[in-house]
Amino acid sequence: MNAEILAVGTELLLGQIVNTNAQFLASQLALYGIDVHYQGVVGDNPKRILEMLDIAAKRSDIILLTGGLGPTVDDLTRDMVAEHVGRQLAVDPALLQELQSFFQSRGRVMPPNNKKQALRIEGADVLPNPRGTAPGQYVHTNQTHYFLLPGPPTEMRPMFLESVVPFLQRLQGEETIYSKVLRMVGIGESAMEEQVRDILQAQTNPTIAPYASEGECSLRITAKAASMEAAKSLIEPCEQQLRERLGAYMYGMDDDTLAIAVGQLLMEKQQQMAVAESCTGGLLGMMMTEAPGSSRYFSGGCITYSNDLKRQLLSVSEDTLRIHGAVSPECAREMASGLHARTNADVCVSITGIAGPEGGSAEKPIGLVYIGLFYNGITNVRQLQLRGDRNQIRIRSAKQALEFVWHTLRSAEK
Amino acid sequence: MNAEILAVGTELLLGQIVNTNAQFLASQLALYGIDVHYQGVVGDNPKRILEMLDIAAKRSDIILLTGGLGPTVDDLTRDMVAEHVGRQLAVDPALLQELQSFFQSRGRVMPPNNKKQALRIEGADVLPNPRGTAPGQYVHTNQTHYFLLPGPPTEMRPMFLESVVPFLQRLQGEETIYSKVLRMVGIGESAMEEQVRDILQAQTNPTIAPYASEGECSLRITAKAASMEAAKSLIEPCEQQLRERLGAYMYGMDDDTLAIAVGQLLMEKQQQMAVAESCTGGLLGMMMTEAPGSSRYFSGGCITYSNDLKRQLLSVSEDTLRIHGAVSPECAREMASGLHARTNADVCVSITGIAGPEGGSAEKPIGLVYIGLFYNGITNVRQLQLRGDRNQIRIRSAKQALEFVWHTLRSAEK
Repeated sequence: MNAEILAVGTELLLGQIVNTNAQFLASQLALYGIDVHYQGVVGDNPKRILEMLDIAAKRSDIILLTGGLGPTVDDLTRDMVAEHVGRQLAVDPALLQELQSFFQSRGRVMPPNNKKQALRIEGADVLPNPRGTAPGQYVHTNQTHYFLLPGPPTEMRPMFLESVVPFLQRLQGEETIYSKVLRMVGIGESAMEEQVRDILQAQTNPTIAPYASEGECSLRITAKAASMEAAKSLIEPCEQQLRERLGAYMYGMDDDTLAIAVGQLLMEKQQQMAVAESCTGGLLGMMMTEAPGSSRYFSGGCITYSNDLKRQLLSVSEDTLRIHGAVSPECAREMASGLHARTNADVCVSITGIAGPEGGSAEKPIGLVYIGLFYNGITNVRQLQLRGDRNQIRIRSAKQALEFVWHTLRSAEK
Repeated sequence: MNAEILAVGTELLLGQIVNTNAQFLASQLALYGIDVHYQGVVGDNPKRILEMLDIAAKRSDIILLTGGLGPTVDDLTRDMVAEHVGRQLAVDPALLQELQSFFQSRGRVMPPNNKKQALRIEGADVLPNPRGTAPGQYVHTNQTHYFLLPGPPTEMRPMFLESVVPFLQRLQGEETIYSKVLRMVGIGESAMEEQVRDILQAQTNPTIAPYASEGECSLRITAKAASMEAAKSLIEPCEQQLRERLGAYMYGMDDDTLAIAVGQLLMEKQQQMAVAESCTGGLLGMMMTEAPGSSRYFSGGCITYSNDLKRQLLSVSEDTLRIHGAVSPECAREMASGLHARTNADVCVSITGIAGPEGGSAEKPIGLVYIGLFYNGITNVRQLQLRGDRNQIRIRSAKQALEFVWHTLRSAEK
């Protein structure tokens, strides 16, 4: 089984948005052992959409389309797939009913052009979309399986996981593919790979693949077997081997994030964490609260973007700001200890730095960031010199702060 | 002139990385008035790369390839383009010299396999790569122009701007394309489209296309003309028409965000904004500080995820929390006014709600969010019932808070 991902939307061709859907679908299909040989993007143009469908149908078993299911005149995916497979489009009364109640539940009347979204291709299965007005569809001919998915990732991703995965598993037949990701921080991809190269090379089933992403790296163990249990038991000894060598860096598995790993350590210790953010403006707090139940270990904190608020909320001293400046180890230290004095949280993390593009200087260049960490009565400060644009520097600052907390809490365990 | 973007790399097909190169190139080509009708991704597979080149050459004047210029055996782009155009590959002594000095300048000896990167396609112009070891190449046949660019964005982007743009401008000759995006909040995509459908349908040059994204929608006006000035003057009357109907919803243009629009209003009034966030955990502050220079209008605030911090930092009363609870109009009101008392900021915004998936109840369901806004001595509270998962509810809460501030500051103008 091989698949092709085809995104429909002029906004992609104009570069207004990044095609994150293709990356999500590709990584998911890899999980289920389905090879993706091609990805494509085409605009809201009938002739070209048809052309791409014809090319794709000749070379791929499964075609996943994203986008073009909206209510407007340039949403053409439904119509073009219907034409491509030579079937009729007709209003599905059940779909129409759902659409109308979707709008009713929001106290709105359905605009007439949304009726278009109730059109179903003859013989297609409907893929429900509880999060939006664009239902998906699954159509298959003797040769090809077509999945029509909405463009917004917040609607497409859950629809894929809830409605497409079951079809894919059936298409895949008996063989189960199960994989497990081991997530690490504090080690680079090549250093990680070198420590376990012999294991990576020895393995055929399960296979082990190294990945690197923003400030982290990971190993994906993937096993093929007749059952989920069999696959898991293939993975287990292999995971053990890897843990023996790299356990010191492993903070979690699969969909864990560093923030969740920090949260787990905090819960074990029954401790609370708070943040004091300058250049990250709330990003660290946002990351700490992404996971449900984070109120058990995260209390909040202060966003002290201005020097005034550094003084008022965290009691950073006038002298520190005047003599050393807001981006200094002294300020990071006073922010963390001042946050503890204010909130009494067990773990108090501060971030102050220069995210740019303005504000850099010879002795304080863009990317200079200080992280303060108050824990067990002591405040330590880490200095970083980060690369990247404003956005990257902010994200990397927050991730480095999380890594700092994770290592500190973890070593405090022993 | 139309162009096609073809990315080469198995890591894209496996979903290990997002294809941001395609988005960058597409947005750049749009700037230079070159239509992109297709984007493609193919793996490090000789047969499939050739197939994609053949398809692309039949339908596109310009083909921009990214990736596959590295030193390893799976870097095939050079070889496949040479084969596709039927020309020889030979080591270019000047390139080889540059590569060797690149390594020398870093105090390293060039690994033998990097010699491959000195291979130049017969008749190709070299596109210099001062930032890496993979030089680009420009090859043209009578029908098609090929640009071979490296995969890493940090090398590809500057190479495009420095070396590809001059070629494109020559290829383009006279015609310019200019487009302008009008951004709106407080109206849905189909409602927006219905209000201006007659204008959309009447227009051919400029064209007008509607788009929707999380909580917002926009109209893109695109004009083709002999000069930038001529294009702008085609857009101007059309923009006026749209503003007459939809001006009440328009917060900005092109790359503006709602946070930037709020920032502009704050700067006009020389006022400062602060935030008090519960369920969003810092997201609103993060959004307000995404733009450089936001310190001119954003001072910071408090992340009060726990009730303790709502009391300690914002002086929310014990009774309010006990009688009405943290998710109540009373709490939102006290958070906003308490924030003003603490920070003295002119505009104080509070968010408290239930993002889920836990914590919902019959009378306080998941998605119930209160936004408090202290302004000019008065605190108003908005109640929302938002849909979506935890992440969506948090994002929509923050965006609704921005919309609330934007409308309030804007109507205060009049």
